[in-house]
Amino acid sequence: MTPCTKLPAWKKLEDHAAKMKSAALKDMFTKDPERFSNLSFRLPGFLADFSKNRITAETLDLLVELLDQSNFEKLRTAMLAGEKINLTDGRAVLHTALRKPQPPPEAHEALERCYQLSDAVRNGTWKGHTGKEITDIVHIGIGGSNLGARLVTEALSNHHHPRMKCHFVANVEASDLDRVLKSVDPETTLFIIASKSFTTVEVMQNAAIARDWLTAHYKNDKKSVEKHFVAASTNAAAVAEFGIAAENMFPFWDWVGGRWSVWSSIGLCIMIMTGRDNFRDFLAGAHIVDDHFANAPARENVPVLMGLIGIWYRNFMKFPAYAVSPYHTGLARLPAWLQQIDMESNGKCVTREGDTITMETGPLVFGEAGTDSQHSFFQWLHQGSDVVPTDFIAFAKTPYGTEAQQNMLLANCLAQSEALMLGVVNKEAPHKNFPGNRPSTTFMIDQLTPQSLGMLMALYEHKVFVQGAIWNINSYDQYGVELGKVLAQTIGRELDKGETGMHDASTTGLMAYIRQVP
Amino acid sequence: MTPCTKLPAWKKLEDHAAKMKSAALKDMFTKDPERFSNLSFRLPGFLADFSKNRITAETLDLLVELLDQSNFEKLRTAMLAGEKINLTDGRAVLHTALRKPQPPPEAHEALERCYQLSDAVRNGTWKGHTGKEITDIVHIGIGGSNLGARLVTEALSNHHHPRMKCHFVANVEASDLDRVLKSVDPETTLFIIASKSFTTVEVMQNAAIARDWLTAHYKNDKKSVEKHFVAASTNAAAVAEFGIAAENMFPFWDWVGGRWSVWSSIGLCIMIMTGRDNFRDFLAGAHIVDDHFANAPARENVPVLMGLIGIWYRNFMKFPAYAVSPYHTGLARLPAWLQQIDMESNGKCVTREGDTITMETGPLVFGEAGTDSQHSFFQWLHQGSDVVPTDFIAFAKTPYGTEAQQNMLLANCLAQSEALMLGVVNKEAPHKNFPGNRPSTTFMIDQLTPQSLGMLMALYEHKVFVQGAIWNINSYDQYGVELGKVLAQTIGRELDKGETGMHDASTTGLMAYIRQVP
Repeated sequence: MTPCTKLPAWKKLEDHAAKMKSAALKDMFTKDPERFSNLSFRLPGFLADFSKNRITAETLDLLVELLDQSNFEKLRTAMLAGEKINLTDGRAVLHTALRKPQPPPEAHEALERCYQLSDAVRNGTWKGHTGKEITDIVHIGIGGSNLGARLVTEALSNHHHPRMKCHFVANVEASDLDRVLKSVDPETTLFIIASKSFTTVEVMQNAAIARDWLTAHYKNDKKSVEKHFVAASTNAAAVAEFGIAAENMFPFWDWVGGRWSVWSSIGLCIMIMTGRDNFRDFLAGAHIVDDHFANAPARENVPVLMGLIGIWYRNFMKFPAYAVSPYHTGLARLPAWLQQIDMESNGKCVTREGDTITMETGPLVFGEAGTDSQHSFFQWLHQGSDVVPTDFIAFAKTPYGTEAQQNMLLANCLAQSEALMLGVVNKEAPHKNFPGNRPSTTFMIDQLTPQSLGMLMALYEHKVFVQGAIWNINSYDQYGVELGKVLAQTIGRELDKGETGMHDASTTGLMAYIRQVP
Repeated sequence: MTPCTKLPAWKKLEDHAAKMKSAALKDMFTKDPERFSNLSFRLPGFLADFSKNRITAETLDLLVELLDQSNFEKLRTAMLAGEKINLTDGRAVLHTALRKPQPPPEAHEALERCYQLSDAVRNGTWKGHTGKEITDIVHIGIGGSNLGARLVTEALSNHHHPRMKCHFVANVEASDLDRVLKSVDPETTLFIIASKSFTTVEVMQNAAIARDWLTAHYKNDKKSVEKHFVAASTNAAAVAEFGIAAENMFPFWDWVGGRWSVWSSIGLCIMIMTGRDNFRDFLAGAHIVDDHFANAPARENVPVLMGLIGIWYRNFMKFPAYAVSPYHTGLARLPAWLQQIDMESNGKCVTREGDTITMETGPLVFGEAGTDSQHSFFQWLHQGSDVVPTDFIAFAKTPYGTEAQQNMLLANCLAQSEALMLGVVNKEAPHKNFPGNRPSTTFMIDQLTPQSLGMLMALYEHKVFVQGAIWNINSYDQYGVELGKVLAQTIGRELDKGETGMHDASTTGLMAYIRQVP
């Protein structure tokens, strides 16, 4: 595979970037009255506006040239066909299959079982050990088994079953679980243990503590686990070993990567909290985007354009990061979910063939809900020394509040992208100068629904795919988390035993400091 | 004022950086057995370990030279003496005065009034309109009137009064307040309206809705507001106009900037939830650091070193960002608070004299609680193309959980900094290569207490001061948020009236899209 930096389009883009460095967004609008209509794209109930990005038709032509010269087309086909494009793990990458109207038979069956459980919990036929209805779901999982499930559950809070609350526990830090156990009743709580491998140390430790807490309430009656613990996992043996009945294990498969597993039984808490119809709509939303991603021509393909513009900024304009600002409190955790989707996927420094990569790969992503973020880091976006492209996400309509509130919210969102672009010159008071020409993308979505949320999340997933394909990265493994895990086992054993092995003086010194704290 | 880039030490640092680019951290430990003891510093109940940073004694000497050549010393003296170092606003910057054992008389009096209110709410002598004790505090504020108060309240949850819960509402997006109003009882809820100016649109809108919700419950009896609304503000007239009694307004002053106001009456919710003794300890912790910052020599001054090392990375090693990973769920919002403290303060592009700055100023900050973050963006920290220095924050002891849990938590934290530094070479499987040599600072704190939290937050505040002083930035204003506010008013009016004024085609197009959504 030719390194992307050696592709003919790469050099052209470098030359083009030199010219574009000083080009003003404002002027692009003045020169081309069709700019908005040319650079904004509709999906069902969804508008993606790329026109406030520092790109021209030529930029896009060159980026599509790069795309065509890359492995993208082949890799997309291979992914959707279920080939084992995750080379290092020897696995297919088929989360898109979960979202099809006709998923693979095993996925269909597993989903149906999840729906049956969620129906039973919701309608009260599923009862706890003492015959009470469930009032609290405690979802124990971390990383890919937490971020998506938590995001979607929180975002769809207006669809929650009125009897139930959902709590999320991720951290091995003990206050995380403690806080939740203090607020729930063992007789009406259902724990979902979410772990692909069912060996993740954080999850297994918290699960064991929760199980002991439950059985302690029932005077050590192990049978109580049956009606209060279910698992979402690929590891049936470990689930059984833990004490969860086979019929309460909801499988997924090695072709569903952890960070794309919200679409599988890892989403069980979403199904329970919002019901099967809403989860079906969530999957259907993603499928609309999958279909679009598979079939739309590059120049009109929203996730492809997201990916290409990201490459343009990262490799040619040299912007190291992008910000995401969802104008909805329910999406406050979208940036955290996206950090895993993007940074864990493309934060890599070797190619699919194992060659060292020297250019920039996956960018830094960060963000907070707007308008909150306007009162923290937006100062930096407007007047800081770095240009950081921003994704604005807003919903045209809302079931909450008054029209005046909604107009104020939307006005703030639109005003930020306008201000970032326009800037302002103030010669008398230079601290009131805004350099402007700072780019953004706006996703204007009709309303926050299960479907539109599924669309939004699938768009970002495919964006990450596009960039990984061009950089020729394996976006599906995460070997970068392994070294820390191994070293943590060693240090953990040493702390348990009061020993100190061979470490650098800092690690040794910190361990000594820990021990002398009374 | 000489631009910092023209200071003699700047050039020396550039030359030094060229040599240091390839220097390996590992080797620095091998060469110098005293590295840990030379580069780690103790404060009461607190260890700051800088030894895993890519610095040598020479680096620090040069950075201190730069500091000495800068305006730092003068500016620190001026700040602590209450001179109006916030030039553009003509204001002093005296949040440190709030933390003194003997604060200024007006601050002492205001704090005492806050304590009396919190005592009364806690012991039940403060009663709602129908004579019931308060069970829920709803803190309505945004930005500086939200992030610190929320962080500290959440971090100190084990000190909460058992009768009370505290809720935070910031966003103008209507679900934020709606969610809270649905969960509280008007007869037992106390609203704190936190706004320095008492004109912040988000806060005033949410406050008005909350007030209407309350009075609607009392058949429009306006008197009910008295026992259910208090204000933290500098604007007595606006507070009175809103309907809050003078005795229920808790003032602060123009010498307390919004993002440093958690130490003032903006921290009222902390006092109510945790009591006056805990708040006093929180202030006392910050004062320990203030004292240290004012008096310790630069080479042993923890916030000075934090600032200098940040300058080294930002301007000389060209790292655009830093990550913060607190290994405690209670500090999950620390990065969000820090984003405002750092990015809003130093995300600027003019000097104190109004000259344009061309070099890098305030860095990007981001983070999530560990161990959660290990399962999302840590892949990127280990194997991504960028080097991003990381601050690890951990607590040696905890009242939560078992020793085994705590050891696992600490082992994870230590293992990450060790792994980031060491890296690993794997020739057979290049995807298992870790470049290593990635720097970090570890704050090992004895325990999460009001005092240690106050110390930690004050350290970051002063770090930001140090960097602003060297860059010769006014870290205390935030004119970068003004343009968006002005444009939002215009667009808001247009949306209200169904009109569209003069905008770029994107803004116009988005407004048209919003209108056609049914």
